[in-house]
Amino acid sequence: MGLSILVGVVSPYYRINFMTYCLAIALQEGLVFCSDSRTNAGADRVSTYSKMHRFEHAGDRQLVLLTAGNLATSQAVVAQMQRDAENGVEGNYTQAAYVSEVADYVGKLCLAEQSKYANGGPNAGFNAEATFILGGQIGNHAPELYLIYPEGNHITVSGEHPFLQIGETKYGKPILDRIIRSETEPHTAMRCALVSVDSTMRSNATVGPPIECGFYRKDSLEPLSSYVKLEENHPYLVRLRKSWDESLINAFSGLPSLAEVFE
Amino acid sequence: MGLSILVGVVSPYYRINFMTYCLAIALQEGLVFCSDSRTNAGADRVSTYSKMHRFEHAGDRQLVLLTAGNLATSQAVVAQMQRDAENGVEGNYTQAAYVSEVADYVGKLCLAEQSKYANGGPNAGFNAEATFILGGQIGNHAPELYLIYPEGNHITVSGEHPFLQIGETKYGKPILDRIIRSETEPHTAMRCALVSVDSTMRSNATVGPPIECGFYRKDSLEPLSSYVKLEENHPYLVRLRKSWDESLINAFSGLPSLAEVFE
Repeated sequence: MGLSILVGVVSPYYRINFMTYCLAIALQEGLVFCSDSRTNAGADRVSTYSKMHRFEHAGDRQLVLLTAGNLATSQAVVAQMQRDAENGVEGNYTQAAYVSEVADYVGKLCLAEQSKYANGGPNAGFNAEATFILGGQIGNHAPELYLIYPEGNHITVSGEHPFLQIGETKYGKPILDRIIRSETEPHTAMRCALVSVDSTMRSNATVGPPIECGFYRKDSLEPLSSYVKLEENHPYLVRLRKSWDESLINAFSGLPSLAEVFE
Repeated sequence: MGLSILVGVVSPYYRINFMTYCLAIALQEGLVFCSDSRTNAGADRVSTYSKMHRFEHAGDRQLVLLTAGNLATSQAVVAQMQRDAENGVEGNYTQAAYVSEVADYVGKLCLAEQSKYANGGPNAGFNAEATFILGGQIGNHAPELYLIYPEGNHITVSGEHPFLQIGETKYGKPILDRIIRSETEPHTAMRCALVSVDSTMRSNATVGPPIECGFYRKDSLEPLSSYVKLEENHPYLVRLRKSWDESLINAFSGLPSLAEVFE
């Protein structure tokens, strides 16, 4: 069993380490996608892979797939999607009428890939699971956004909960809970996504730069606009991090004093 | 298998839900302890249990034990500690010269309790794990603080990392990372602990009120001072929550605009 297929799981039970953090937001104006680029298979096998895969057919369909979990499974799914499209295989993503059909298809590919390693053999018990976020727009249908579970089923967003997260999701969720609404302006939502990913990097070593972020404008059927790929020391990211850090410390110091409880 | 022993684990693999959030901080002036009170065993078996257990012998020793994970295991450990002390059993906490000895003893009790359910039977495979934070002071030795793993071993704090967390730790860690230092003033550290627990409650339904928080003053060998138990609608907690919420939103709106990246 090569180290490469251990990506995603290094410990048993609840001490499982997720290697990545991705999120996507469904706004009234379109879709925001954001991902980190860290993968590892143990502390001396840390490397950088983009988790943002784009399937672009201008004027016809635009799809973005974000991946978390086992890197081998994720790569196999992406490669199969590309091959099926090239070979015109029945059910490939270029033939789908809705993004939800592509989500079903990604779920099936993911399950098929995992099942190769599920039954006995020297690899029995290792975790080949991968989780995906798929978003985009096909033709004149509305944009859609899905989280696809390792089991192959999927959920979408709602007006009250317009974002989806995969991987190391908890550190960066409170800021999204507070800021993100369907009507949030795209650049504001992107900035919030960057803060969410950047502050996760601070608290968790399995999430790392560069951070990719992009916006799909509804009904454009054009590739991501406002796309950025920020290395750790990108001047904007440095300023964002410093400013957020100072603002949080200031915010905390302005909170009501506990002394009043004891009066 | 009664529902009560399912506390701590409701899902397989990484979808394990921790039912609680506790933390403790080692300050130059003493120790801060903070815990929520939610336990559940499925959505219709949500209830309230204190996770903060105090072993108080004024002038001799003061110990505080915070618990997370399986409620049956936690309760069994606390009950055994009390019984061993009452019966003068060799190695009970009233005989220990150092808090670390009590940590070893808690680890042993925890392992013994789990091992009752480990081998076969109808309950095989259910998770009886519990995790503890133990802090306090014995005689003229310095205060000590430990996190005790389900395996029975333990770690302590360092000058660079003066706090320990158990249970649902991730949502509330970023604010601790930013604010807590050894030299932080006790009421400030308590306020930070309350923000950490309260904002975790907002993001995760398995952490719930009342929140208990208290401070052990170094070398006092007296019970917790500044102890508070805040119900969800306690006026201070409401003001703290509202103020923190508004401050975060303000802090976010003051961050550098992403537009500059595209100029």
